[in-house]
Amino acid sequence: MSDTRNKALQFAHENQGKFLTELEELIRIPSVSTDANRKEDMNRTAEWLASKMRQIGMNNVGIYPTGGHPAVFGERIVAPQVPTVLVYGHYDVQPPDPVELWQSPPFEPSQKGDNLYARGASDMKGQVIASLAAVESILKQGSLPVNIKFIIEGEEEIGSPNLGSFIASHQDLLSCDVALNPDTGMISATIPTITYGLRGLAYFELRVFGPEHDLHSGLFGGIVHNPAQVIAELIAGMHDKNGRVTLPGFYDRVRQLSDEERLELTRLPLSNEEYLRQTGVPELWEGEKGYTPVERLGARPTLEINGLYSGFIDPGSKTVIPAYAMAKISTRLVPNQDPEEVHQALLQYLKENAPSTVRWEVIKMAGGPACLTDPKLPATQALAQALETVFEAKPVYKLEGGSVPVTTTMEDLLGVKSVLTGFGLPDDNIHAPNEKLHLPTFYKGIDTLIHFFYNMQNIS
Amino acid sequence: MSDTRNKALQFAHENQGKFLTELEELIRIPSVSTDANRKEDMNRTAEWLASKMRQIGMNNVGIYPTGGHPAVFGERIVAPQVPTVLVYGHYDVQPPDPVELWQSPPFEPSQKGDNLYARGASDMKGQVIASLAAVESILKQGSLPVNIKFIIEGEEEIGSPNLGSFIASHQDLLSCDVALNPDTGMISATIPTITYGLRGLAYFELRVFGPEHDLHSGLFGGIVHNPAQVIAELIAGMHDKNGRVTLPGFYDRVRQLSDEERLELTRLPLSNEEYLRQTGVPELWEGEKGYTPVERLGARPTLEINGLYSGFIDPGSKTVIPAYAMAKISTRLVPNQDPEEVHQALLQYLKENAPSTVRWEVIKMAGGPACLTDPKLPATQALAQALETVFEAKPVYKLEGGSVPVTTTMEDLLGVKSVLTGFGLPDDNIHAPNEKLHLPTFYKGIDTLIHFFYNMQNIS
Repeated sequence: MSDTRNKALQFAHENQGKFLTELEELIRIPSVSTDANRKEDMNRTAEWLASKMRQIGMNNVGIYPTGGHPAVFGERIVAPQVPTVLVYGHYDVQPPDPVELWQSPPFEPSQKGDNLYARGASDMKGQVIASLAAVESILKQGSLPVNIKFIIEGEEEIGSPNLGSFIASHQDLLSCDVALNPDTGMISATIPTITYGLRGLAYFELRVFGPEHDLHSGLFGGIVHNPAQVIAELIAGMHDKNGRVTLPGFYDRVRQLSDEERLELTRLPLSNEEYLRQTGVPELWEGEKGYTPVERLGARPTLEINGLYSGFIDPGSKTVIPAYAMAKISTRLVPNQDPEEVHQALLQYLKENAPSTVRWEVIKMAGGPACLTDPKLPATQALAQALETVFEAKPVYKLEGGSVPVTTTMEDLLGVKSVLTGFGLPDDNIHAPNEKLHLPTFYKGIDTLIHFFYNMQNIS
Repeated sequence: MSDTRNKALQFAHENQGKFLTELEELIRIPSVSTDANRKEDMNRTAEWLASKMRQIGMNNVGIYPTGGHPAVFGERIVAPQVPTVLVYGHYDVQPPDPVELWQSPPFEPSQKGDNLYARGASDMKGQVIASLAAVESILKQGSLPVNIKFIIEGEEEIGSPNLGSFIASHQDLLSCDVALNPDTGMISATIPTITYGLRGLAYFELRVFGPEHDLHSGLFGGIVHNPAQVIAELIAGMHDKNGRVTLPGFYDRVRQLSDEERLELTRLPLSNEEYLRQTGVPELWEGEKGYTPVERLGARPTLEINGLYSGFIDPGSKTVIPAYAMAKISTRLVPNQDPEEVHQALLQYLKENAPSTVRWEVIKMAGGPACLTDPKLPATQALAQALETVFEAKPVYKLEGGSVPVTTTMEDLLGVKSVLTGFGLPDDNIHAPNEKLHLPTFYKGIDTLIHFFYNMQNIS
């Protein structure tokens, strides 16, 4: 056994160049799920993955149509008595905008030093390739220690609108003992990280309509309520002076941190200096008063403005009162908050605060609740051991600010917990220009997953 | 004399079709001064005007280069002892965006009923053609009753950055007794209007910089101050709950309305219902408390947001904390306010209110002070009489909300007052999609200007 494991690790080490080439191939297909013009690229990406799964020896491989972009499935069943791990991934990526800020073309991988720059390199094509590479490395040397299934969707970056119904209608196909989700990241290249909690998301578009068309600001300024001013006032009112979100009832269901959890979170080696370096801001925001940065990032809900538009935004000047203003507004939710209740709270806030000088509407977009996983789960321990072996450091447990709604979906529909990890780093610029993947950590990720699959053999 | 005047009017009536064709020709050249790609079109427009001036019999016609777009000059001097009228115009137009909201192409004039739809039809190519047509009609029948000079610039819509230095260096060329500026409008098609006051303008671009690049809102939401939120808070703070602008000292120099002026302004036949119809807003904005809509539009300064941008504004959702937010902010100024003082007040406001979690900068753009003209000026009376003759109604005197900085420039550099009128209507959609010109009013405008030039002969 130890021998097989070592041979798998050896194969992985000798084939790092091959895995990198595969990752580059996958990256070159611009699978931007939110872009209607990329439908064909989405299909090509799914084909590429299905073909790769067949190549490495997965069975029952299929591309499953959904209401949106297809999902790719493959499995290798060794024996009914060994545990079954369902590996989740997504092959879609964020839009590359603003494209002009990229130092190399977003869909042409560019290696500089230890890093590979490209959209999707870290989030999460690198993690998908690492998972496939671990399985391939084991299969090249013998049989798998556990049953493995892959489900790789194409709509994570747009809120997985069709994944729930796909899982609901394929419960037998996806049945498993535990899910592995390598879509979260590490705190640093030397600190392996297991995420035991994830924030949920509720995303909206607020549209404010004023005059029927843009007006001359000199001729009408003073009697027409400017929609850009109105939306600014509405946004400004969404936080109070203590940095708290003012949507009615927003905090009602928020799970309070226990003293034990707060103590554990202080042990995370995350410093304000490190956050300043990663973000480049002149000073951190104090945010919600009474909570530390680590708590605000993982354990407290937030409200963010993701986009803002009104009137004339080209170079130069145009003296208009805009007819229209728009804001993309999203909230990050913690356990027990319900995205639909947040939607209602936003509507209530607008009913109470929007002036009658304008009309407004809210478009409800992506959303999903938060989730928490027990760090003492046997699969989590198997992962912790694998991480410690490879990184030679005990993993830390983290509440992460991002959202992985699929975790809740799988718990609800398949009755399984998810183990969350990943080999991306905080400065990978995911969702931003110049996304990159730290290759040494990517290779360690492959090793970690090989160890994880072997460790899983021993859990009851 | 009366005979010549009547012949000129007759020529104008018989040649309305020809004048309309000329206007359509002029409109077809897309002279958008703020668009760097339109430089060639700007030059073509200047050439067109110079050629037209020569055709109708103006002398000494020239295209004068400036630091930006050229200015076109032409004159016809009858005798040193008669008054000289300098007619001001501009041949540049606003950008057509948003182009998709136009019902016909913006630079292809389209006649529907009594209206001609096109960018620049009302602001102010129609007014320029009306002025040239009036002079042509007189010259076709005999000699001019007064000396006439034309100065037609190409940078009004971008704040006339080079007009001041052009006038300063051509004071002899432009010397005159009074300036006629037909760039303001009428209250309605049946109410001829003389504008005796105009608001000034100070236009800025505020840029707020947060993180070095867009960040994942889940991973950093709660510790990074969102620039879109910051700019919204800064904008929201620029008005207090009484609708007053909060920039420090903003109202210090504001000229107060006299009781007599307030009374005169109540006589303007402008109703809230009419404003609602023109703008299509569900309700008028109360604006600065204590002032009527007419006062707020003409006699009180305002601050407007003309454009707003941050983050992701395409269809769909992207969970970013934007790196950057931008607002185009302009103030409409009343007499005695100084654009540079307003600039300093904005900087002071930002120093006092912008949080240290972001960096910011202000780009100073177009600007000019407000102006007031004495309604009792003889030239104003000559115009009032001309308007009454043609429209068969006594003109009303109006404080207008728009800005015509050239009026102040001419007073400062040439020592002359401007008489302000025009034949555009409030629903002409200037600076907006589907700009139009009401043709019957345009033709009456030609008649009015013929009468005005003859009336000017009799003033001392």
